[in-house]
Amino acid sequence: MTQTVPTPAHTVQQRYRDTDTAAPADWNPVLRVLHEHRSVRRYLAEPVSDATLRLLISAAQSAPTSSNLQVWSVVAVRDPARKARLAALAGNQAHIEQAPVLLVWTADFARLRQLAADRGVPLDGADYLESSYVGFIDAALAAQNAVVAAESLGLGTVYIGAVRNKPEEVAAELGLPEQVFAVFGLVVGHPDPAEDTRVKPRLPQQAVLHHETYDLVTQRAHVDEYEQRIAEFYAEQKLSHSWSERVLARLASEESLNGRHRLREALANHGFRLR
Amino acid sequence: MTQTVPTPAHTVQQRYRDTDTAAPADWNPVLRVLHEHRSVRRYLAEPVSDATLRLLISAAQSAPTSSNLQVWSVVAVRDPARKARLAALAGNQAHIEQAPVLLVWTADFARLRQLAADRGVPLDGADYLESSYVGFIDAALAAQNAVVAAESLGLGTVYIGAVRNKPEEVAAELGLPEQVFAVFGLVVGHPDPAEDTRVKPRLPQQAVLHHETYDLVTQRAHVDEYEQRIAEFYAEQKLSHSWSERVLARLASEESLNGRHRLREALANHGFRLR
Repeated sequence: MTQTVPTPAHTVQQRYRDTDTAAPADWNPVLRVLHEHRSVRRYLAEPVSDATLRLLISAAQSAPTSSNLQVWSVVAVRDPARKARLAALAGNQAHIEQAPVLLVWTADFARLRQLAADRGVPLDGADYLESSYVGFIDAALAAQNAVVAAESLGLGTVYIGAVRNKPEEVAAELGLPEQVFAVFGLVVGHPDPAEDTRVKPRLPQQAVLHHETYDLVTQRAHVDEYEQRIAEFYAEQKLSHSWSERVLARLASEESLNGRHRLREALANHGFRLR
Repeated sequence: MTQTVPTPAHTVQQRYRDTDTAAPADWNPVLRVLHEHRSVRRYLAEPVSDATLRLLISAAQSAPTSSNLQVWSVVAVRDPARKARLAALAGNQAHIEQAPVLLVWTADFARLRQLAADRGVPLDGADYLESSYVGFIDAALAAQNAVVAAESLGLGTVYIGAVRNKPEEVAAELGLPEQVFAVFGLVVGHPDPAEDTRVKPRLPQQAVLHHETYDLVTQRAHVDEYEQRIAEFYAEQKLSHSWSERVLARLASEESLNGRHRLREALANHGFRLR
């Protein structure tokens, strides 16, 4: 492909679909990769090498972790049969089968539990809801570094929250012991250039960035503005969605959570007391 | 400072303090920024401009978000008096006062609740534990993009999990309504070059990266290896810590959570039902 590189101003503007957005104060290759992110849902068969995988994980481990606890682990799944079974458990998402690697990121307290047991000391702090959030946050920070690293190498990614739809089955498939819980999956592979993926516009910055104190009331106008801007994006994809309708439907009811209303029970079954 | 740029191999090796780590398969400026991360706890007084702040937030909004829900917001605190009060609430961390900006990242369901109320539709899915994790994960993915963007610009950062120590007081300080909860803070500023911050070594990659299925037993040897490597890092900082002792102490008991054992109650008080 011979493409001209978009200007920094254009790159930031396309994130908001707002040509009034000021040109950025600074620019560099890192900012370009961050701003150009898009989720990829069609992949080539081309594999991801062990050397590349190691590089994604060293990037992930370079992310901050609360008190250096490192309460996360990741399972790399490449076996086609296992990927197919996980795809079925995660709402039949074809890209899980199509891409060469599925990384399943876990909140992992088993490593520290083993250490505590070996030394005969308590680890009662791990039994609190707080600690589960630490595990989920640590896994997210690490995984996001892997996403940025992958995209800098021309690879595509997409997160798979649907590994939480059937947590017990996913845990059995990956041999996860007590205290190791699958937080989300991440598909990694070479993007199929036939897929027309555009940058998805986000809410106007004024809706999410607050100064000194939080402001709810003025968000209505920003959401209305966003509806117009994302309609343009949807139309290009031959869709006639409304963002508000979609997100409200996603969180409308117990049923709309696709099994994840059971998460508390599933975590308890897996040794997380969530006090 | 006139420094030679470390080789890619050296940069990855210092993350593990392991000179046997193979040179990376690829390299670029993004991978360098990711691998060179270190937390900064001493800052210059120099401000962070509005234009730079906007760029950090557009990078943050470019991160993936579950089903495009965008259930996070961020409050930028620059007022010295407010920063000082938040520093006191977060265990008297001096760098919160010293740095020009504290970004407080929140899990935010108030925006969608307002939208649902305006339209008279239910949002019962938001009442589940699952949805709180979505908010925490979304905030973490966004914040980590902001960290990478900041470091690419030569700025320093450090996460402040201690905003969860006294959640009600932090919420009052920031005017957070029901359904908006402070997940963590992030200090941003210009690093004081007088601080000798080194890259903190992480667990051997074999401890956190599993292939096809999870393996707990072999982790003991990797943890033992890590104890040796991080001891070298601690010694350089004139500390005589053991990683295992530190992390086990951090999670030993209710008391060791510094108030965060109350997180479930605090979230409930703030409108999160966590069903």
